[in-house]
Amino acid sequence: MKATAIATPNIALIKYWGKRDEKLILPTEGSISFTLDEQLATKCTIEFSEDYKEDELWINGKRYLTQEQIEKSKNQLDFIRRIIGTSIKAKIVSESIVPTAGGLAGSAAGLCAQAFAAVNALNLGIDEKQISIICRIGSGSACRSVYGGFVEWRRGEKADGSDSYAAQIADENHWSDFRCIICIVEREEKKIKSRPGMKRTAETSILYPKRLEYLPFVLDMTRNAIIKKDLQSLMKVTMRDSNNMHSVMLDTWLPIIYLNDVSRKVIYSIHDFNADGIKAGYSFDAGPNPCIFTVNKYVDEVKNILKSIEGVEEIIISKAGRGPRLIENHLF
Amino acid sequence: MKATAIATPNIALIKYWGKRDEKLILPTEGSISFTLDEQLATKCTIEFSEDYKEDELWINGKRYLTQEQIEKSKNQLDFIRRIIGTSIKAKIVSESIVPTAGGLAGSAAGLCAQAFAAVNALNLGIDEKQISIICRIGSGSACRSVYGGFVEWRRGEKADGSDSYAAQIADENHWSDFRCIICIVEREEKKIKSRPGMKRTAETSILYPKRLEYLPFVLDMTRNAIIKKDLQSLMKVTMRDSNNMHSVMLDTWLPIIYLNDVSRKVIYSIHDFNADGIKAGYSFDAGPNPCIFTVNKYVDEVKNILKSIEGVEEIIISKAGRGPRLIENHLF
Repeated sequence: MKATAIATPNIALIKYWGKRDEKLILPTEGSISFTLDEQLATKCTIEFSEDYKEDELWINGKRYLTQEQIEKSKNQLDFIRRIIGTSIKAKIVSESIVPTAGGLAGSAAGLCAQAFAAVNALNLGIDEKQISIICRIGSGSACRSVYGGFVEWRRGEKADGSDSYAAQIADENHWSDFRCIICIVEREEKKIKSRPGMKRTAETSILYPKRLEYLPFVLDMTRNAIIKKDLQSLMKVTMRDSNNMHSVMLDTWLPIIYLNDVSRKVIYSIHDFNADGIKAGYSFDAGPNPCIFTVNKYVDEVKNILKSIEGVEEIIISKAGRGPRLIENHLF
Repeated sequence: MKATAIATPNIALIKYWGKRDEKLILPTEGSISFTLDEQLATKCTIEFSEDYKEDELWINGKRYLTQEQIEKSKNQLDFIRRIIGTSIKAKIVSESIVPTAGGLAGSAAGLCAQAFAAVNALNLGIDEKQISIICRIGSGSACRSVYGGFVEWRRGEKADGSDSYAAQIADENHWSDFRCIICIVEREEKKIKSRPGMKRTAETSILYPKRLEYLPFVLDMTRNAIIKKDLQSLMKVTMRDSNNMHSVMLDTWLPIIYLNDVSRKVIYSIHDFNADGIKAGYSFDAGPNPCIFTVNKYVDEVKNILKSIEGVEEIIISKAGRGPRLIENHLF
């Protein structure tokens, strides 16, 4: 009834921004991501027991209590409990492996680790596809952390969400010199959280329907570029999709602006670096922290460019991660 | 053969961003603007004479020589010369009335003043509609400076551009307490000029066709809000259109980003100010300088908000201007 898992964040190359079902966390379109290695991993121990009168959630040593704080975790556990017809409560203890980088795509790693641990604690004996759906119920992007390498979250068509889960495009060995360089530029909490933000975009942006119309082509191009290890095509479609998502955010009413002056400097610097041909690409989630994708031979150059930009506080270089795994040493 | 005119900039509420004809400066859609008063005016003296062997352009005491620098002025004069079948050259001397604010929407004021002076120096005896077309040939947005108050530049349908000119929606007396507050936040020259920038957007932005599809409705709403003096509706559509234009700029390949951290602070501050109902609206041209529209009774509050934002260097408050006029005291 107790298990501990490690899961890692994933960074979307093609972004998820908008739900077609708020409760089941079904996306308006598919998305494609790169799973990071364990430098930014989250470790989660879960124990189900009749002794617990309510779910108890601890993250990085702090008890989470409010409805808002525990919502994602609880939704995921409720979903599992409904599957197996139980009301048993759990204690969940979650920790960032590297505390300094906590928060970056943290909910994806955290809710994937929790799902993986819960499924094993309860001995459910289900496959990655089902675990991916359980992840999704907690936090949409968490469902992509179920695999290593390059992963696609399929939109799905069904109203019950049973065909909206992650699938691996290529594993962590397929493109072994591919890298993700994560820059930390700001640690303050963002003003507009992703969940209400994407809801507002889907409801109000004039340009958003055009984004959705175009995404199936973008997903095709991205899948092909990954399979062919075509860096130029992959980086171009990645940068364009990041810009496209931040465009529909700005077009939202009220507007959502995550990019700041540091982000802008990074964007222009990468375009300067690419002047003679695309060698690297940026991508920004719902925040100003840039993620730069490239291959090993350009890492040092990109690192030096990033270091020269005022406001870049920390740089982490990640290979492809292998996806979540169980470990023996529990957190409590 | 000599005349001097004063013309003022105009600030678009509904933006012009994209041409359907690069040579004739025909826009992909209509736009609507507010003509500023003479605080930011440009004064232009033009003299046609057989003594001049070539066109000579002076702006703020500096001779403009390169093809790029004189292009807009020269295109406008060539257009006039073709109409009347002459090759006579001209000396043009142009000056910002307030030198410190030089550059803000300066080409609209400058090319309107030049057109107005030229038409009078040559005694062409044509109406505002024709002058507006002459302005347009120099710089698209200049055609809106031909009238005071609120002005619409009509897209037009004809390939020769003869139906793409400005028309007044309401004159400077219609909404006498309406104000435009111009903030200067940055004086450095912008990296990407409007002309190549809008060309790139029209050619590459995925979202741009959606903007064009929606603009006719936006123009209708704006026209109605001006006629009814409906501040809330006008401000909402103005802010949304500014955000929408900057969205398609960001979606351009390579991306165009004019908004900076100061712009973002202004945007969020205005939304805070509007929390209980819209009282003011921001708009950004192809640069980070915010223009805030409001009515007289809110001017002091808005001014205080803007003053409290670090990076705002200068604030100018403008009523509706009356459009261009001839004056007697020539610049040379």
